[in-house]
Amino acid sequence: MSLAHETEQIALAAKEGGRALSHAGRAEKDRFLLHAARLLKEKSAEILAANAQDLARAESAGVQGAMLDRLALNPKRIDGMISALQEIAALEDPVGAIDAGWRRPNGIMVERRRIPLGVILMIYEARPNVTVDAAALCVKAGNAVILRGGSEARSSNLALAALLSEALSAAGLDPRAVRYVDNPAREALYELLQRPGEIDLCIPRGGEGLVKAVYEHAKMPVLAHERGVCHVYVDQSADLEMALSITENAKVQRPSTCNAAETLLVHEDEAARFLPLLAARIPQVALRADAKALAHLPGATPATEEDWFAEYLDLILAVRVVSSIEEAMDHIARYGSRHTEAIVTRHQGRAERFLREVGSSTVLVNASTRLADGGELGLGAEIGISNTRMHAFGPMGLRELTTTKFVVRGEGQLRG
Amino acid sequence: MSLAHETEQIALAAKEGGRALSHAGRAEKDRFLLHAARLLKEKSAEILAANAQDLARAESAGVQGAMLDRLALNPKRIDGMISALQEIAALEDPVGAIDAGWRRPNGIMVERRRIPLGVILMIYEARPNVTVDAAALCVKAGNAVILRGGSEARSSNLALAALLSEALSAAGLDPRAVRYVDNPAREALYELLQRPGEIDLCIPRGGEGLVKAVYEHAKMPVLAHERGVCHVYVDQSADLEMALSITENAKVQRPSTCNAAETLLVHEDEAARFLPLLAARIPQVALRADAKALAHLPGATPATEEDWFAEYLDLILAVRVVSSIEEAMDHIARYGSRHTEAIVTRHQGRAERFLREVGSSTVLVNASTRLADGGELGLGAEIGISNTRMHAFGPMGLRELTTTKFVVRGEGQLRG
Repeated sequence: MSLAHETEQIALAAKEGGRALSHAGRAEKDRFLLHAARLLKEKSAEILAANAQDLARAESAGVQGAMLDRLALNPKRIDGMISALQEIAALEDPVGAIDAGWRRPNGIMVERRRIPLGVILMIYEARPNVTVDAAALCVKAGNAVILRGGSEARSSNLALAALLSEALSAAGLDPRAVRYVDNPAREALYELLQRPGEIDLCIPRGGEGLVKAVYEHAKMPVLAHERGVCHVYVDQSADLEMALSITENAKVQRPSTCNAAETLLVHEDEAARFLPLLAARIPQVALRADAKALAHLPGATPATEEDWFAEYLDLILAVRVVSSIEEAMDHIARYGSRHTEAIVTRHQGRAERFLREVGSSTVLVNASTRLADGGELGLGAEIGISNTRMHAFGPMGLRELTTTKFVVRGEGQLRG
Repeated sequence: MSLAHETEQIALAAKEGGRALSHAGRAEKDRFLLHAARLLKEKSAEILAANAQDLARAESAGVQGAMLDRLALNPKRIDGMISALQEIAALEDPVGAIDAGWRRPNGIMVERRRIPLGVILMIYEARPNVTVDAAALCVKAGNAVILRGGSEARSSNLALAALLSEALSAAGLDPRAVRYVDNPAREALYELLQRPGEIDLCIPRGGEGLVKAVYEHAKMPVLAHERGVCHVYVDQSADLEMALSITENAKVQRPSTCNAAETLLVHEDEAARFLPLLAARIPQVALRADAKALAHLPGATPATEEDWFAEYLDLILAVRVVSSIEEAMDHIARYGSRHTEAIVTRHQGRAERFLREVGSSTVLVNASTRLADGGELGLGAEIGISNTRMHAFGPMGLRELTTTKFVVRGEGQLRG
């Protein structure tokens, strides 16, 4: 079978498999999720054995450290997958919700009703738990999903995908609604990305190279996370103890994440007091400071223009002194990535202005940028974070895996 | 100046020009709209003179008929533009609306607040009124807009764009927020489509060739209308008089539109009575019928497989007899374009089932497919109809020119 033909079969099967799922009730979908959770418990030895094969292959290929850790499953991580399935089962079904409804002068009743997106292509690397998480979220929102994981996790992913198929059948759902693509060739992926007639959305989760390649080849919409150059702005007369805690949390609690702060902006009235306190509070962080900040940060190195654009994902923080909130917002507009920005202030007017005028996907007053996360914001679960403003901007939960249609009820109304 | 450099300047100016507009209040935006309406009245002679140049050029190039008519302005059409501006001014401002809000266990207050998309690239052909309509809708929703009309309407579009700039300045808004691109070369368009860093969305409105070229070259999201293969299904025991009116209206009221019906599906129990009545009711329509329908339609020609996929946009109707609502929905899923479908029925259960299970952007019971339109559905104004399920599915109004951001208010909350 040619690659193009194989790909067509996969895409058509997912589309067909998703038709009944698109209007399945919550009960069937939750039955699938809870059955998958039970199977994960029963078959954990099998899953771990499959994962051991992946780990052995990776180790003999010289993989080590964080990369090997991301690939690894253990009983605790399997429990994590089980909990995720149970939590997703407990979430409201977004499908069928009526966002709004009204009556028109001619008497027709119009409503906007939530429906699934259709078929979603999930592309990811390393972590095998994404196979379960992504399938669970897509199915709960009524979508068929084509899963394309990394070849390094092939054995684990195939074992998990088989378990998901079994759970779909047990719940009376079409097992074709979840399909794992067992073809590591980039060409197989590119063929799938050429099928907008069957695949409604592609979500890539992985490194910059993967995301770029997907944008390059995809003929359907793509929702991806790109860069997170997040800012904390310490305003004039801010509570400096709060500002210290927020800056520390935003920078060091987990520096490798996209919502960690990369640049600190400090109002000039606070710089002399705040910056020395900060250097003492986070001695493990390398500071890159502009000329005005350097005056208060003897241990810092001078920042270059590149530092303002940098997504360090590391224990490094760029620091700039600004003379006003306008200058802070101009800096964010120029250098930021529209991801997440926080202001620390006691001034209500400037707080509201920052919240209104900064166009990033999450804006916070007196809270850490690390809270810009589907779970923390209360979306229940997160399928990813979108950097584009279309469809979803910022953390995406179940609702972002749906769209709306117009439903009209009439009594013979015509167009005049 | 090189083309790439010129394009960069245009895109950067629109992005910069849109920054203040993105959080401008409703009053300023409405002042712009109403000032533009006044200028259109005052300067109608100038606009008509510019349009006369376009018409003369088109005529000497041999353009005639419908194409020439689409290009033409006259006092009535200028009044139409004025009314559109006044109506858009009367619409609610979508920006700043809070879609939802909640408090998290840690005390942070979270809200989803509507914000503009950013910079929109509108690409269109012939009709000069789109210059005014599109700019009005984009600006009301807080977006900067780059307008790229057809070269055949160049003089009219430049005159209208100058008027829009004047109105922006008069309203205290940045005139860079509306920019007309006066470069007819396809390469100039393709350069713009390569700038996702400044342009957030592209909306092409025009023929299939234009839309295809845009999809091919665009690096940013595209919202476009593709095909409308709309169905009317006459169910078992439908009110046949209502079914006749709806089929007639859906097919002949304006056959060239995307929401006109192209295929009629009739339940076999009604075929013998309904089809001869239909043939008598719309004698001007050429019928292409399957074998079962042909038995009741002596004047029809046999339908081929291609007829079920066809978007005739003409006085032609494909007709098929089905034995159940399932068969009707299977036909729609297989051959339809997910645009608009109507069921005519007296049976409440089948009506609800059709509304639930048919995945098109507008589904109607006992009403004409021609009602699938932003104005008819009550969106106030329509910037287009989207065939993709992402961001907007179906008719798009002002709200679809916005997105949401998360706004968080805390008292020092951190990530644990």
